[in-house]
Amino acid sequence: MAKRFSADKYVAGILAGDRVMLSRAITLVESRLASDLELAQEVINQVLPHAGNSVRIGITGVPGVGKSTFIEAFGNYLIQEQGKRLAVLAVDPTSQRTGGSILGDKTRMESLSTNPQAFIRPSPAGKSLGGVTRSTRESILLCEAAGFDAVIVETVGVGQSETAVHAMVDFFLLLMLAGAGDELQGIKRGIMEMADAIAITKADGENAMKAKAARAEYQNALHLYPMAASGWLPKVSVCSALEPSGLDTIWQSVSDYLKLSQQNGFFEKKRRDQNLQWMYEAIRQGLEENFYSHQQVQEQLPGIARQVQEGQKSAFAAAAELLKLV
Amino acid sequence: MAKRFSADKYVAGILAGDRVMLSRAITLVESRLASDLELAQEVINQVLPHAGNSVRIGITGVPGVGKSTFIEAFGNYLIQEQGKRLAVLAVDPTSQRTGGSILGDKTRMESLSTNPQAFIRPSPAGKSLGGVTRSTRESILLCEAAGFDAVIVETVGVGQSETAVHAMVDFFLLLMLAGAGDELQGIKRGIMEMADAIAITKADGENAMKAKAARAEYQNALHLYPMAASGWLPKVSVCSALEPSGLDTIWQSVSDYLKLSQQNGFFEKKRRDQNLQWMYEAIRQGLEENFYSHQQVQEQLPGIARQVQEGQKSAFAAAAELLKLV
Repeated sequence: MAKRFSADKYVAGILAGDRVMLSRAITLVESRLASDLELAQEVINQVLPHAGNSVRIGITGVPGVGKSTFIEAFGNYLIQEQGKRLAVLAVDPTSQRTGGSILGDKTRMESLSTNPQAFIRPSPAGKSLGGVTRSTRESILLCEAAGFDAVIVETVGVGQSETAVHAMVDFFLLLMLAGAGDELQGIKRGIMEMADAIAITKADGENAMKAKAARAEYQNALHLYPMAASGWLPKVSVCSALEPSGLDTIWQSVSDYLKLSQQNGFFEKKRRDQNLQWMYEAIRQGLEENFYSHQQVQEQLPGIARQVQEGQKSAFAAAAELLKLV
Repeated sequence: MAKRFSADKYVAGILAGDRVMLSRAITLVESRLASDLELAQEVINQVLPHAGNSVRIGITGVPGVGKSTFIEAFGNYLIQEQGKRLAVLAVDPTSQRTGGSILGDKTRMESLSTNPQAFIRPSPAGKSLGGVTRSTRESILLCEAAGFDAVIVETVGVGQSETAVHAMVDFFLLLMLAGAGDELQGIKRGIMEMADAIAITKADGENAMKAKAARAEYQNALHLYPMAASGWLPKVSVCSALEPSGLDTIWQSVSDYLKLSQQNGFFEKKRRDQNLQWMYEAIRQGLEENFYSHQQVQEQLPGIARQVQEGQKSAFAAAAELLKLV
């Protein structure tokens, strides 16, 4: 077990911008030890009045799209050109990882990870998606209280994690490759509709023309989507982390979105809705954890599930049978 | 309380194709009376071995797209040209209805409702979405056991019900109007990605050209989506319930889809997955019903939810606090 401090000590360190205390507090909220839970909640509750003052950006894209390279280039742009203090958090349950983790990618984010204005936190290892998203959400609050006014939440783009990340950020950016064939890009159905912006990466050299063609195609496709509740029409742009180029256009989209959504009240409404949504989600998780860890449920579930799959028992009869056990 | 029979009597009637007994059995599964629950489950379990032999088609589209008229024309086509026996069920929680209910539409489905090969069942009145989808899923099984080999599940296209219907059918058909501007059609984001086919309705008279242009546009847009797990590329076609025309093309898509998905095993896999998904969904609903009906939870939830919305309490701390009450 890692070293523990008093809640006051964590909070004082975080508010003073102490990166070591911030890291330790994140480790605390990542812990699932029952003995840590109360302390973690005390810390979170104390920093809450100091949290919220950042733009929260979710970034997704399949392996190969150049996500780490993009985040490094975009992060440096935010720090150098926009004067931001940037935190980068990852949501990738290790068990589902196919490629390298953000920790392994540290060399690829070399300049960002040594920048005093940036704070990079890898995904907690060996966690379920529920555990990761829970601690990531609380980590956002801790980073904000420590003075980071831009938070990037990175996710891998092939699983369930996008929906969870979408529910904790203000702006969702989807990275795509030009001409890879969407079926090859492995983007899960539904993710494109979550995007507030799409950026075609690697728009340099021979790729530049292809990227521009892809931009037109995607912009056209997005016009077919129904208008988002925010009143925002998602933007498509091209960028190159290599040159670098196009990063200002992406930031402009974020700024325009913030301006629009703050003016029409959507920003505040979305944050409030997200807070409530996470409470209900946490309740659901808590109820299911209790239920599925019950001994009799664990014993009988596999057999009953098999009967349901094979159409020998109705789903609702099976549920009623299992619910009676607890 | 409606009249009740023994489970054996319901089952014998259903298997004999007795429409009155089928109706009564559906009323039974729609009941939320605790005293009816066990009997309903007994009936369902007994008919299960006789269920499953239909093609289950979900149909959605916003009010104004001509859904009832389409279903009547398509239903008559299925009966007359394809020799099907057709059941039509509706999933529209009354509280969320903006327009007329399928019951009120009965005159619009006049020829279908008097056809001995068709069985039309309106949405149960005054129910939550959870209650409607639960009873609709069981009603599908009852209709199949009564010999209906095509089941259409209709939903209204503006709410949460599409996801629920998508999870209970084999094939999902989205009806669209040409040139209405998608933002005006009110189709919820994400629904287009669920569609196995899109049919542009009212493709007759002056509208015919516009409908064909819309078809090309949608077909193009669908190419941008990632390939569905079924290996099926959604088809877009035009149709007119008035002429009638294009109904055979839509049925051809359904047939092609069935052939492909039965050959590659996706059909069977999807049905098994759906069964399991409904069991887990029913468990979740049961757990939440118990939790949220708990007296102390009901007393404390509003105040705690307000604190969470306003950022005075973290979502997870609030959830933990509420979970402790039960």
